[in-house]
Amino acid sequence: MAALNGATGDLKSTFRLVYSKLKSQLLQDPAFEFTDDSRQWVERMLDYNVPGGKLNRGLSVIDSYKLLKEGKELTEDEIFLACTLGWCIEWLQAYFLVLDDIMDNSHTRRGQPCWFRVPKVGLIAANDGILLRNHIPRILRRHFREKPYYVDLLDLFNEVEFQTASGQMIDLITTLEGEKDLSKYTMPLHHRIVQYKTAYYSFYLPVACALLMSGEKLDDHIHVKDILIEMGTYFQVQDDYLDCFGDPKVIGKIGTDIEDFKCSWLVVKALELANEEQKKLLYEYYGKPDPDSVAKVKELYQALDLQGVFEEYEKESYKKLISSIKDHPSKAVQAVLESFLEKIYKRQK
Amino acid sequence: MAALNGATGDLKSTFRLVYSKLKSQLLQDPAFEFTDDSRQWVERMLDYNVPGGKLNRGLSVIDSYKLLKEGKELTEDEIFLACTLGWCIEWLQAYFLVLDDIMDNSHTRRGQPCWFRVPKVGLIAANDGILLRNHIPRILRRHFREKPYYVDLLDLFNEVEFQTASGQMIDLITTLEGEKDLSKYTMPLHHRIVQYKTAYYSFYLPVACALLMSGEKLDDHIHVKDILIEMGTYFQVQDDYLDCFGDPKVIGKIGTDIEDFKCSWLVVKALELANEEQKKLLYEYYGKPDPDSVAKVKELYQALDLQGVFEEYEKESYKKLISSIKDHPSKAVQAVLESFLEKIYKRQK
Repeated sequence: MAALNGATGDLKSTFRLVYSKLKSQLLQDPAFEFTDDSRQWVERMLDYNVPGGKLNRGLSVIDSYKLLKEGKELTEDEIFLACTLGWCIEWLQAYFLVLDDIMDNSHTRRGQPCWFRVPKVGLIAANDGILLRNHIPRILRRHFREKPYYVDLLDLFNEVEFQTASGQMIDLITTLEGEKDLSKYTMPLHHRIVQYKTAYYSFYLPVACALLMSGEKLDDHIHVKDILIEMGTYFQVQDDYLDCFGDPKVIGKIGTDIEDFKCSWLVVKALELANEEQKKLLYEYYGKPDPDSVAKVKELYQALDLQGVFEEYEKESYKKLISSIKDHPSKAVQAVLESFLEKIYKRQK
Repeated sequence: MAALNGATGDLKSTFRLVYSKLKSQLLQDPAFEFTDDSRQWVERMLDYNVPGGKLNRGLSVIDSYKLLKEGKELTEDEIFLACTLGWCIEWLQAYFLVLDDIMDNSHTRRGQPCWFRVPKVGLIAANDGILLRNHIPRILRRHFREKPYYVDLLDLFNEVEFQTASGQMIDLITTLEGEKDLSKYTMPLHHRIVQYKTAYYSFYLPVACALLMSGEKLDDHIHVKDILIEMGTYFQVQDDYLDCFGDPKVIGKIGTDIEDFKCSWLVVKALELANEEQKKLLYEYYGKPDPDSVAKVKELYQALDLQGVFEEYEKESYKKLISSIKDHPSKAVQAVLESFLEKIYKRQK
C-alpha cells in the first residue's frame, strides 16, 4: 500500500486504493470457493454499486479519527484501518440502495441505471444486496478480529443496520399501506423516520467507528450520539427543503417529493400552519403527478412562507447544536462535531 | 417460563413457548421506538414467516446440546438458551425464504401464499426479510452478550450467512444467466451449490451452536464440520431424488425440477451416464414445461437406472459417513452425528 502515508496522494485517492485492496481480499475469501463466473459477477457488482457515490460517509471516519488524535501523525496502519471502516459504511449504504431501488421500482441511481435494471441482473440484485451486507463482517473479521473493540464494532454495525431497516419500515408502511392519508404526516412521525432511516447510519456511525478506533467506549458518549442524530435530522430537513426550493442545476436533480406523496418536512410544516381551507387544498393536490397540482402546492408553500419558516428552523437548529457541542468536555470531540456541522450548515446541495 | 423444565410439555411446545418470549422482547426492543402500526406489522410478519415450518433445524440445536451433555439434566436456563439459538436458525431460514420467494417469483410456501403475495405487503417483503435477519443479532445480544462465546456466535452466524448467500449466488447465475445451458451442470458444481446453499446452515450451524454452548472452540472441530457438510450434501441429493421418484402424497408436493431446469443431482448423473444420443435427448427436453417433454426425461432416467444408481450412492454415503463418525474421538460428538444421520437415512419425505 505504497501511497497510504498520504504524502503521495490526497485522502480520497488513498481511500480509493483501500477499496481495491478490500475488494481483492473479498474475491479471495477462503470461506467460499468461487467459480470463475461468480468471482467475476461479484467484482462487477461491487464496482457498479460501492464506489460511485460522493463517499462523504466513508471519508468522515478518517476525518473524525484525525481530529480525535488531535494532530498526532497517523501511522500507515491507522490510516488503512480508518479507511477500511469508512468503506464498511459505504458497503452498508450500497446494500441499502440496491434493495431500496428494487422496493421503490426506481430507474436511475448515481447517474446510471439501478443495478436491478442492468440486463441479466434482475432480481438477482436482491441476493447481491445481501452479499454486500455480508461483506461487512468479512472485512471486519479480517482486519479487526484481534482488536479489543472488535465485538463493539460488530454490535455497532448490527444495531445501526437494525435501526435503519426499522426506519425504512415505518417509511414504507406509512407511505404505501394507508393509501395516501395525509393525516398521518405529523412532525413526530417525520422525526422518527428521519432519525432511524438516515441519521444513525449517516451521522452517528462514522463518528462511532472513529471513537471505537480511538479506544473509547460508546456508552460513555450517549451525548455525542444525541447531537449527531439531531444533526442528521437537520440534514434531512435541508434535503426536503432543497427538493422543492433548491436550484436543480446545483443539486443535480429535479425534486419530485410533492408528486411522490413523500412525508417531507415541508408538507408536515404546511399541515401545521395551514387554515382549514389551505388544508383542504393540500389534501386535494398533494401527491398528484400533474404540473398544475404541483404548482398549487408550491403556491401554498409560498403563501405560508415556508422558505422563511425553514430559514428560522435552520438558524435555531444551528444555535442549539453549537451550544450542545460547546457543552462537551473534550475539545477533540467538539472539533469532530463542529467539523460535521460546518460541512452541512446552509448547504445549497 | 413455567413449562421450560420439560416436565409439563414436550420439547416442541417448550420450543414454541420460547418463540413467544423472543417475539415479545423484539417488539419491545429499546433500540427502536415502534409506532403502533409498525409494531403490529412486525408481529404479523413474524407469525406469518417464522414458526410455520417443520422446525427441524431449530429443534436439532437442543437435541445436539443434550447429547453433548451426555445425559446430564439441563437447567431451565440451558434449555432456554438452546431453544433461543434454535430460533435464531429458524429466523435465518425465514429471512432466506422470504427473499428467495421474491427472487423466484414463487406462489406458495408452507401451504400458504408467499409473504410478498399477501395483500398490501408486496415488495415491503424485501425490507421485512432484512428485518428478520436483523433480529438475529438483537436476540443474540440480549441473551448471550455476557457469555465467553458471544463473539464466536456472532462470527459463526455471519460466516454461515455469507456462505449461504454465496451458494445462492452461484445457483442463481448458473440457472438464469446462461439461459439453459446444460453443459454447465457438472457434479463439482452441483456439490458446490448444495454445500454452500444448504449444508452449512441446515447441518453445520445447529451443531456448531450446540458446541459453542458446551464451551467448545469451533476450530477444534473442523472434522465435525466436514462430516456435517457431507451429510447435508447427501440430504440434498435425497431431496433431488424424491422430487422425481418420491410419492407426492408422502412428500406433500409434486416435484417440478425437470420443468424448472434445476441443477438436480439426477440430471447431472444422467449427463454423466448418457451416451451421445441420450445426451441429445436431455438437451432437447430438459427444462420444458409440457408433460410429454417431462415424460421423455423420466423415461431416460429409468433407462439409465437412476433409481439403482441413487440406491448405490445412498448406501455408499451412509457407509462413508458412519466410518468417519466412528473415527471421532468423542463418544458424545459421535452420538450427535449419528442422531443426525439416522434422522435422514433412507427417508421417504
